[in-house]
Amino acid sequence: MNKVVTFGEIMLRLSTERHLRFEQAKAFTASYGGGEFNVAVSLANYGVNAAFVTRIPENEIGACALKEMRKMNVESKNIIFGGDRLGIYYLETGAGTRGSNVVYDRAHSSMATIEKGAIDWEKVLEGATWFHWSGITPAISESAAEACLEAVKVAHNLGLTISCDLNYRSKLWQYGKSPSEVMPEILHYSNVILGDIDTAYFMLGIPKVNPNYQDTKSLPALYGQLFELCPNLKIAATTLRYSVSASHQRIGGILFDGKSIYDAAVKEVTPVVDRVGSGDAFMGGLIYGLLEFQNNNQRALDFAVAACCLKHTIAGDYNLVTLKEVENMLDGDGAGLVSR
Amino acid sequence: MNKVVTFGEIMLRLSTERHLRFEQAKAFTASYGGGEFNVAVSLANYGVNAAFVTRIPENEIGACALKEMRKMNVESKNIIFGGDRLGIYYLETGAGTRGSNVVYDRAHSSMATIEKGAIDWEKVLEGATWFHWSGITPAISESAAEACLEAVKVAHNLGLTISCDLNYRSKLWQYGKSPSEVMPEILHYSNVILGDIDTAYFMLGIPKVNPNYQDTKSLPALYGQLFELCPNLKIAATTLRYSVSASHQRIGGILFDGKSIYDAAVKEVTPVVDRVGSGDAFMGGLIYGLLEFQNNNQRALDFAVAACCLKHTIAGDYNLVTLKEVENMLDGDGAGLVSR
Amino acid sequence: MNKVVTFGEIMLRLSTERHLRFEQAKAFTASYGGGEFNVAVSLANYGVNAAFVTRIPENEIGACALKEMRKMNVESKNIIFGGDRLGIYYLETGAGTRGSNVVYDRAHSSMATIEKGAIDWEKVLEGATWFHWSGITPAISESAAEACLEAVKVAHNLGLTISCDLNYRSKLWQYGKSPSEVMPEILHYSNVILGDIDTAYFMLGIPKVNPNYQDTKSLPALYGQLFELCPNLKIAATTLRYSVSASHQRIGGILFDGKSIYDAAVKEVTPVVDRVGSGDAFMGGLIYGLLEFQNNNQRALDFAVAACCLKHTIAGDYNLVTLKEVENMLDGDGAGLVSR
Amino acid sequence: MNKVVTFGEIMLRLSTERHLRFEQAKAFTASYGGGEFNVAVSLANYGVNAAFVTRIPENEIGACALKEMRKMNVESKNIIFGGDRLGIYYLETGAGTRGSNVVYDRAHSSMATIEKGAIDWEKVLEGATWFHWSGITPAISESAAEACLEAVKVAHNLGLTISCDLNYRSKLWQYGKSPSEVMPEILHYSNVILGDIDTAYFMLGIPKVNPNYQDTKSLPALYGQLFELCPNLKIAATTLRYSVSASHQRIGGILFDGKSIYDAAVKEVTPVVDRVGSGDAFMGGLIYGLLEFQNNNQRALDFAVAACCLKHTIAGDYNLVTLKEVENMLDGDGAGLVSR
Amino acid sequence: MNKVVTFGEIMLRLSTERHLRFEQAKAFTASYGGGEFNVAVSLANYGVNAAFVTRIPENEIGACALKEMRKMNVESKNIIFGGDRLGIYYLETGAGTRGSNVVYDRAHSSMATIEKGAIDWEKVLEGATWFHWSGITPAISESAAEACLEAVKVAHNLGLTISCDLNYRSKLWQYGKSPSEVMPEILHYSNVILGDIDTAYFMLGIPKVNPNYQDTKSLPALYGQLFELCPNLKIAATTLRYSVSASHQRIGGILFDGKSIYDAAVKEVTPVVDRVGSGDAFMGGLIYGLLEFQNNNQRALDFAVAACCLKHTIAGDYNLVTLKEVENMLDGDGAGLVSR
Amino acid sequence: MNKVVTFGEIMLRLSTERHLRFEQAKAFTASYGGGEFNVAVSLANYGVNAAFVTRIPENEIGACALKEMRKMNVESKNIIFGGDRLGIYYLETGAGTRGSNVVYDRAHSSMATIEKGAIDWEKVLEGATWFHWSGITPAISESAAEACLEAVKVAHNLGLTISCDLNYRSKLWQYGKSPSEVMPEILHYSNVILGDIDTAYFMLGIPKVNPNYQDTKSLPALYGQLFELCPNLKIAATTLRYSVSASHQRIGGILFDGKSIYDAAVKEVTPVVDRVGSGDAFMGGLIYGLLEFQNNNQRALDFAVAACCLKHTIAGDYNLVTLKEVENMLDGDGAGLVSR
Repeated sequence: MNKVVTFGEIMLRLSTERHLRFEQAKAFTASYGGGEFNVAVSLANYGVNAAFVTRIPENEIGACALKEMRKMNVESKNIIFGGDRLGIYYLETGAGTRGSNVVYDRAHSSMATIEKGAIDWEKVLEGATWFHWSGITPAISESAAEACLEAVKVAHNLGLTISCDLNYRSKLWQYGKSPSEVMPEILHYSNVILGDIDTAYFMLGIPKVNPNYQDTKSLPALYGQLFELCPNLKIAATTLRYSVSASHQRIGGILFDGKSIYDAAVKEVTPVVDRVGSGDAFMGGLIYGLLEFQNNNQRALDFAVAACCLKHTIAGDYNLVTLKEVENMLDGDGAGLVSR
Repeated sequence: MNKVVTFGEIMLRLSTERHLRFEQAKAFTASYGGGEFNVAVSLANYGVNAAFVTRIPENEIGACALKEMRKMNVESKNIIFGGDRLGIYYLETGAGTRGSNVVYDRAHSSMATIEKGAIDWEKVLEGATWFHWSGITPAISESAAEACLEAVKVAHNLGLTISCDLNYRSKLWQYGKSPSEVMPEILHYSNVILGDIDTAYFMLGIPKVNPNYQDTKSLPALYGQLFELCPNLKIAATTLRYSVSASHQRIGGILFDGKSIYDAAVKEVTPVVDRVGSGDAFMGGLIYGLLEFQNNNQRALDFAVAACCLKHTIAGDYNLVTLKEVENMLDGDGAGLVSR
Repeated sequence: MNKVVTFGEIMLRLSTERHLRFEQAKAFTASYGGGEFNVAVSLANYGVNAAFVTRIPENEIGACALKEMRKMNVESKNIIFGGDRLGIYYLETGAGTRGSNVVYDRAHSSMATIEKGAIDWEKVLEGATWFHWSGITPAISESAAEACLEAVKVAHNLGLTISCDLNYRSKLWQYGKSPSEVMPEILHYSNVILGDIDTAYFMLGIPKVNPNYQDTKSLPALYGQLFELCPNLKIAATTLRYSVSASHQRIGGILFDGKSIYDAAVKEVTPVVDRVGSGDAFMGGLIYGLLEFQNNNQRALDFAVAACCLKHTIAGDYNLVTLKEVENMLDGDGAGLVSR
Repeated sequence: MNKVVTFGEIMLRLSTERHLRFEQAKAFTASYGGGEFNVAVSLANYGVNAAFVTRIPENEIGACALKEMRKMNVESKNIIFGGDRLGIYYLETGAGTRGSNVVYDRAHSSMATIEKGAIDWEKVLEGATWFHWSGITPAISESAAEACLEAVKVAHNLGLTISCDLNYRSKLWQYGKSPSEVMPEILHYSNVILGDIDTAYFMLGIPKVNPNYQDTKSLPALYGQLFELCPNLKIAATTLRYSVSASHQRIGGILFDGKSIYDAAVKEVTPVVDRVGSGDAFMGGLIYGLLEFQNNNQRALDFAVAACCLKHTIAGDYNLVTLKEVENMLDGDGAGLVSR
Repeated sequence: MNKVVTFGEIMLRLSTERHLRFEQAKAFTASYGGGEFNVAVSLANYGVNAAFVTRIPENEIGACALKEMRKMNVESKNIIFGGDRLGIYYLETGAGTRGSNVVYDRAHSSMATIEKGAIDWEKVLEGATWFHWSGITPAISESAAEACLEAVKVAHNLGLTISCDLNYRSKLWQYGKSPSEVMPEILHYSNVILGDIDTAYFMLGIPKVNPNYQDTKSLPALYGQLFELCPNLKIAATTLRYSVSASHQRIGGILFDGKSIYDAAVKEVTPVVDRVGSGDAFMGGLIYGLLEFQNNNQRALDFAVAACCLKHTIAGDYNLVTLKEVENMLDGDGAGLVSR
Repeated sequence: MNKVVTFGEIMLRLSTERHLRFEQAKAFTASYGGGEFNVAVSLANYGVNAAFVTRIPENEIGACALKEMRKMNVESKNIIFGGDRLGIYYLETGAGTRGSNVVYDRAHSSMATIEKGAIDWEKVLEGATWFHWSGITPAISESAAEACLEAVKVAHNLGLTISCDLNYRSKLWQYGKSPSEVMPEILHYSNVILGDIDTAYFMLGIPKVNPNYQDTKSLPALYGQLFELCPNLKIAATTLRYSVSASHQRIGGILFDGKSIYDAAVKEVTPVVDRVGSGDAFMGGLIYGLLEFQNNNQRALDFAVAACCLKHTIAGDYNLVTLKEVENMLDGDGAGLVSR
């Protein structure tokens, strides 16, 4: 059986309800999430053995995060304790012409102060078949970047498939290094990369090309350059997101396996209940699809797009849908009928 | 003055708020509803003398349901007490591509264990002009089906108009009989039937025909077959529902009076606040229209469609709108202007 | 630096949440607002020195309104205390085909019983550059109308720019005078008028003309008539609102400066979180634009339209947006992207 | 069977939750209540046929009050419609050393503007055996006082038992008359009076005596003076309330039937969930006791005290307890055991 | 390391907030609990390896219960799926003189319809050192009683310590057998019994004795009779609960180990946030104490009492306290100081 | 007129409602507070001109704090902007035997990273008569301690009265210096000190004496030592707090003015709605009393005790009471009567 290990930060998410602005909120809805954990939740929901590795503080707020991991059926036995605080992000959910707003308060978190050597990766990855990281971890601090590189190297040596969601966040990368100084070495070991082509180019330190995803014939060459720079790369994929408004998104996806381009039909997503974590839902769907539909990259991509669409209808960071719900949507049921 | 008696089950409805999934809910919104009661509420709101007959347990939860009937101005003096529990249904409201989900927990309810003879129908129906039942009651248990048949026979003998909403629910009919073994005899006495043509055919035990409602010329023959099988039938109607997504419905309707087909213009319904009970709102509107606009079946149908559309904007099972609000919409005001 | 003084009533707003009807509400969300105060809040948010003048009762509810003024950074030092009650309005927020409903309970309020002479306008307006009032104040009582006229005269003598939002409300004007008996004298002193052309004509006592705002060539003549009747008028503007449903509005605007017609592109607004106060947001944006973009009436109008659109995404009466957020939308960002 | 008619005002109650001060509240809990209606609810809960007569506005807020009457199983068919607004009271619930605070906003309400002749009392009181009013109605306006006197006279002529809760509120009586100018004539017809002896003396215009309720031997003389001034008086009773803090009350009661003094044991009431309406709960219990335990004034008084104590544990104006719950407490169960 | 397995029913708990009566509730707080699961949660919180065995339905509500078990860190891998519904209990939390009220709706639940043989107890109990059951399981249905007996026998054969909380509930035992027909055989195998002496006598079918727990010298003889009837009994304990009111409890405890009586000091518990589950907290504390303080029965008892007291301050069924918190209270800190 | 300036940190407070433990909370109530700001709010509520000086981040969360200052009518014009984050504290409110729990997350806050020289104290303190600081500011970071010392020196030079609340928090003081290395120099300039005698001794680096506050004759000598070590000291006061449980406190106070000991009667405080900020309420009351009742130290102390008691009944950090409410309590009204 497959086992996927993801590594990253889990934060306390403090969000306002019903589109309230921060100043209007008398209360913040408290939940927990973070890109790589969200991916693990998706996989656990689909029945995959999923584990999460992170560092959390030994206080009551860290304990809440731990209970959440357990509730979500994500293996948490290898998380480590230490540091001073659980990172936070504040979220104000937009509507229509007003976009959502994220205020990060994650500096100095337990995960940001993790150091190389803190985790015994040989032990942690024993029995695992897949390792997932994202561009957020190298973005939060230099020591986290080093810890990430260390993990990826061990995973590579142990023969795991390694996936990365590039996840560029302009409000991070504040510690004095640019992505192109840090990311190439970690991406070197990755077998699956999810992200916009230009984001990948930027992180790899090569000029942006402003890709036209409608012109699918032009894409093999563009993705091909990634394959050259990342020698272990097997699959590159991109979520296509057309934002009509904060409440209306159109979602598609592209996948390149070194040979062929796969293109998923664009789906209408409206209204948007919560779009945070929808990229992680795509990533979780993609990993699931690549694991389970191994000779069917088109279905893997379609599964990722369907999962991503469903995520927009669910509050919170995680894609709380079952395998059957994604499959139903894949197989045509997107009309939102009542089940009774 | 007209008096309409409806007969069926009222349940506790436990629903999640703001599109939360069941597992996310720290609380369930508690309300009360059920197809036939919902119809009574619509009629009471329009000023019709409406009564509801059911069986509820003699405990605090049953008492809550009774208070709700009183609040809604539906006569409740003929409900009977007994049995162990009020039936429940859990509701998770979907959005966009994710449909709503109903989990029934109504087996062994006070209404499911009602028996023939428990209600003195001659007394209950004294002074009434219309009796309404639906396909849910015969679906919950054999004894409820028998109680329903008994009621319909008395209503027929007393000369009341009898209406039925077919309301097929695949998650019910678990007691060992199929609809076609039970429904024909009860439908035999009905004068007004609301439901999809194929649902009616299925319940009457004849082959489905996959009707094309756009091809209105084809419909008289299809409805005609119903009139043949149901000798007391005067009006057959169908709600047309085109589901773009859980948040966007398109609603129309068709009515056949044995002579002519009436077709209501399709209306856009978006967003959907709550679509549960929208069929009952149609039924309530139709009964009202047939009672009040007796020589104007087109207006009766249009009224039913307008009522059904408005219901989608209202949380809970009932159509909490006034007669004037439906009439305003009928007469052109669907643009949602502020009244001030 | 500019200082804008607005004069009018602030009320307690009691609204239902999540589209609930009044009868479903176990609680009313309590906030505070009123047309002229809402304009002051917009201006304060854009960094303009804004002051509000009103009369509130010396009780705990009045004290809440005062705290709200302070929180919003609107100068409140010249409000006066007296009278018996803070006016109230109840609000039920519609959806789709069901419009919102406002129930006023503002008669006998402290502001409705204000009298001429109660405020020392020379002192209050010292240092101000702009005075704003609306057609609501003369609509609530005769003495309020007199107080409004008094204020406008002093503002005129002191050389302030005077703006008026016509704000016709059919549920007001209950004290025995019609708008055309009261409004012309007050409008006489106004330099900027916001409102529908026919509303202006009606208030000035001349026949309505049913203007076609698409036919922009026809508009200078129609607005020109306003300029004739209001000798101090410099700018007349109209918010264009096309209501697809309670949840979908289309917003544009027209401005005439005595010479040219300016026409703003119509924007889609969906979903509507709260449309109450969107006209005040337009007015606030227009005042800001006229103050800051003095030689650019087109940008002033576009700013007003953008502000108005954003308001629809915000709960409550006020337009809680920053200058930068309106400018971002003006400059093309209406796709509701996440900021992170 | 007994039928009790009560007459008075029902208001919208807007209260803060969890001891919040008004300025902290983002929402007000909305419920409906008023002294005389609260008495009717108590009686309906005990199985007595109870009716309420009042005047409410013909708007959505009045409709909410009407639905509440129906829900509570209080006959509402004789309420009349008219006037402009439903009265309001704001309530901030204290704790410990901080008392609760009521802000009235009930002037100009539909009930305050009721006039003599508006109600056909002969018809309304047909079949009734008891009429209840309180000192609040004559306190809100002169016309309401006149309407109250009219009702009492008809009730007297029809031979009903008439009860009055003196209910002195210092924040009312603002219309220019003092209680002693108005109350004596109405009290003249009353058979049962509930209230502090000094309050009665004050309302009857005689000097206060500062009664010592512990010295029960002194009480017959004091109550006797009431009997002299109120020729129809049969029963005078007083709720004894010792306030340790807003969260801790001690409740007893005294009753004089012209011959004997009855004294109920003082009970500890802590914590106090909501003490508003606890006097009405005493009154409702007293009427019930006098109706049902006709030869047992001690039990009638004890029932009133027990009902009053239980009310303090219940949020809102009404005493939502069953007959059996009061009886259980009367018969010794005050230890708050779990029923399961 | 010790491993404790508990067996019983987990239910959906639907409770009203803030002392509201059922009829006042617009929402029910949803949580999950049941006596034997609550014991497992206590143990998991203290760091003991705890597992729960039950039967839940394969629907979304069962899935919620499963997530809750995971969140609470209670091993759930041996629960079985089947049956139609998760049992429910409704809870209204009293205050002062008004007791809490539980309405059960647990008949026909998945656990009530469990059958002997459904669980492979040899496998489930492998590696466990303690088995806990309660008198609720034999009370819900005959087949559940049989399943319980089967489990106890296997646990006995495997040499586990077996504990039982007698937990008599008068609203259960509805299936036609009395406790004394069922309980003796199951109690035969139990080594630790928690419960009132008279409850034990009643369940064992011997005459009640109305024990006086203050007269500790009289207790050895009374407990001794239990030891005679239950040949495997090693420890008998009783929670002493003196109920001043629903909001004020006084908690002590007695333990007899066949030789000595241990008596814990009575502690004041006020206010009571939630007393449901406080007996389970005692039981959990007792098991922990007997496991960890093996030669110190006094400390085991004191620990149970302290745990029980703390539970009253916590909402929901479980005792969400850490080992350190109970120990702090044991060691003198009951004054509720702020930790900061 | 007096003007009081306070200096310290304002934090976002995230608290659970209804005694929920952190892990149970789906939402945190968001409010803002901090010792020195809380003092300013008290003073503003009493009508004193109060100003607050702090450093907050230039983000949306800082903006919320700023709005709160304005709402509370505390002058905020001299706060400075900068740094990365607003400090946070999590609060779980205990009950009975379970104490409240504070988890600080305030390291690296904007206030913690303030530096000497950041504020132009001569300008800020112009026109002020009183400066207040507390032992928290020197406890959060070395640079904050330096900024505090700088402020105190300027205040001293300008002739302001300087007060200090010692506010020792064991969870702070993490930056490598002990209180006795930092506090003596700042206390040197203080004229009023509030705190336990042993806390003062500890901060001044002298041996603790375990004072017996009941033995008032022993106190002059103990306080006298403070006067020797703090040459500018005029008033030393101590809040006496006897904690019966988290829900029941007993509050008194002692004041020494260099000559006489003043002793306030101990008051019962139960229930406790929120005790956080009650020390600040004492401090605010004391400053008010010393300013306004200058020749009446007993009344100043009694006022402080009354204010402190009232604070326990109010949710949140601030003492939201009026001058009149404190005076009413001072003058005997502590029985929590309803005002109506």
